[in-house]
Amino acid sequence: MRIGILGAGQLGRMMALAGLPLGGHFTLLDPGGAPSAGIGDILTGDDDATIERFIDAVDVVTYEFEHLPVALLARIEKQRPVYPSSRAIAVCQHRGREKALFSKLDIPTPAWRLVESAEALAEAARELGCPVVAKSVTEGYDGKGQAVLKDPDQAFEAWAQIGHSMLIVEAFVDFVRELSIIAVRGRDGEVRCWPMAENQHEAGILRYSMAPLADIDDALQARANGYIETLLAELDYVGVLALELFQTRDGELWANEMAPRVHNSGHWTQNGAATSQFENHIRAVCGLPLGDTAARGLSCMVNVIGEEGDPAALLALPGVHLHRYAKAPRAGRKLAHLNVVADDNATLMARVRAVTALLPGAFEVRMSHRP
Amino acid sequence: MRIGILGAGQLGRMMALAGLPLGGHFTLLDPGGAPSAGIGDILTGDDDATIERFIDAVDVVTYEFEHLPVALLARIEKQRPVYPSSRAIAVCQHRGREKALFSKLDIPTPAWRLVESAEALAEAARELGCPVVAKSVTEGYDGKGQAVLKDPDQAFEAWAQIGHSMLIVEAFVDFVRELSIIAVRGRDGEVRCWPMAENQHEAGILRYSMAPLADIDDALQARANGYIETLLAELDYVGVLALELFQTRDGELWANEMAPRVHNSGHWTQNGAATSQFENHIRAVCGLPLGDTAARGLSCMVNVIGEEGDPAALLALPGVHLHRYAKAPRAGRKLAHLNVVADDNATLMARVRAVTALLPGAFEVRMSHRP
Repeated sequence: MRIGILGAGQLGRMMALAGLPLGGHFTLLDPGGAPSAGIGDILTGDDDATIERFIDAVDVVTYEFEHLPVALLARIEKQRPVYPSSRAIAVCQHRGREKALFSKLDIPTPAWRLVESAEALAEAARELGCPVVAKSVTEGYDGKGQAVLKDPDQAFEAWAQIGHSMLIVEAFVDFVRELSIIAVRGRDGEVRCWPMAENQHEAGILRYSMAPLADIDDALQARANGYIETLLAELDYVGVLALELFQTRDGELWANEMAPRVHNSGHWTQNGAATSQFENHIRAVCGLPLGDTAARGLSCMVNVIGEEGDPAALLALPGVHLHRYAKAPRAGRKLAHLNVVADDNATLMARVRAVTALLPGAFEVRMSHRP
Repeated sequence: MRIGILGAGQLGRMMALAGLPLGGHFTLLDPGGAPSAGIGDILTGDDDATIERFIDAVDVVTYEFEHLPVALLARIEKQRPVYPSSRAIAVCQHRGREKALFSKLDIPTPAWRLVESAEALAEAARELGCPVVAKSVTEGYDGKGQAVLKDPDQAFEAWAQIGHSMLIVEAFVDFVRELSIIAVRGRDGEVRCWPMAENQHEAGILRYSMAPLADIDDALQARANGYIETLLAELDYVGVLALELFQTRDGELWANEMAPRVHNSGHWTQNGAATSQFENHIRAVCGLPLGDTAARGLSCMVNVIGEEGDPAALLALPGVHLHRYAKAPRAGRKLAHLNVVADDNATLMARVRAVTALLPGAFEVRMSHRP
């Protein structure tokens, strides 16, 4: 099994770490030229010769980020199977297509409009009722390229600030928390879903995820599973798909956005589930049977952002699993994550607080806002 | 943390897989020239230039096998810290020194004699009372270089067959099962022990290990912990040490032999303990705090020997974790192992039987011979 990964950052690294024991041989292509994965055969560049070398070295291709040049993907897809397919990427690269797919499949999502001018943005803000969120339809990542409008008058400022030719405008959802559902679909159509996680962001970057959640009953989990299963089937999807959901005050789930790859809010599965998202993604891509997605105990994944705490101090804490990415410190950059595990919620929260006290930029871990 | 590993087989591979997430960078030196690890920077050969390149590339050195040239080790030890130290290797490379250490530390071990001729072997067999086991004092591995004497008259045949200049002769122990205790000691002297495992061999090769064991009470585990803690302290040991024990019919533990490294009978810890032997070995070698060694559920590790079963069929079974070594099939060669996990013994045994039914050279998994 010679597996090619487009991208050579931490997600590719963790896919390779999970896939080597399954018998995978990994070649990672970093089109940009700043690979950090530190595992597998690494190629850098996007010239013809490099791409041909990559294709020659692999039997199947996957990727760690969806903001790939479509032309590159189409070229590779002519010669090697690519999972998830370029159709999934085409949908996920464009918030307009993504929302249209949610609507077509009857997956609830906030009311939305596409606009191509500041005037149209102001008009959409009036129609939907402020506050609204305006986002570029492409290349949105970690909260970049978006603005909240509290008044239609802010449309011109927001349009200039975002600086894209097409925006999506979404009605504000009065949600109590963000959840994510992560699922994997095999080449044979088999689907497995992990328990939903609750995610907390800070400055637009995921700060921590907790799973499984005591206040999510089987019916709510089944509803989320149903939404993602519909998406997976519609896209004839192979691999891991992540779907972010808002949970409203009355307990409804509204789709926010999806990512056609392993996802930061699924990192807890490395130490808190029978099979991790990384292993199941590789199993799916290679046509192997999928592993059990049941949780083992309770988990909280904490991102390490900007600078690393003292690894020795962190590893001295009970129930802590450290996953470093071999990246140089930089403000706002994800450098590592910690999976904190426990068998009961009180112990988990105490352990998480001990972890966060050791991390730079201390932050508070809140108990879930129960709906 | 630039970590050097002497040896580039499956143990080095699994150390690197466990150590990369901790921030380790790995360089593996295969003196022989048949590396299979498939991870880290690999050097092959034992010429001066290669050894200097290896030393330049690392800050600390460990190893995956104890049958290393002492001169090579001494040379590296002059320039870099080596854990475990060459003293541990010197003891473990020589069964006579090993037994003398057990005796000195009051760790029970079968009565033994060193002999340097066929005549002396016959005499020792008479003194100890047949049956006895005769083994070369050096380079014993996986049952090679040993013979059982049912009568002193077999001494000449055994001497010729083993073909070494010094043998150790051991009284036969009427044991009910083989156990192993695995422990790790940090640079600061902190020690953690995993629950003991029961090991079953076939043709001198480990077939499977089960842990933890329902019929091992705290007192027996504490006795084994005490033996290995004494060895670790005496050797001022850093890293993982494995000690094989015979459990006698009356419940005593007799030391058989030890290995100064991560051990096949500890592979179950990858999926069945809070921290694996590989991660804790790297933590120890790097001077990091040690992780929790408590078991999570029940585990059985099954070796895949000679040829691999169908990975897809194996991965379709519940509770199965596959660890392949990227090695070509060859009779008697360990190619992979499977960690089977469950929450109760009946489920575990059913899952293990489903696994063994899919492996070439079918074998029976017996319930423990309770003492």
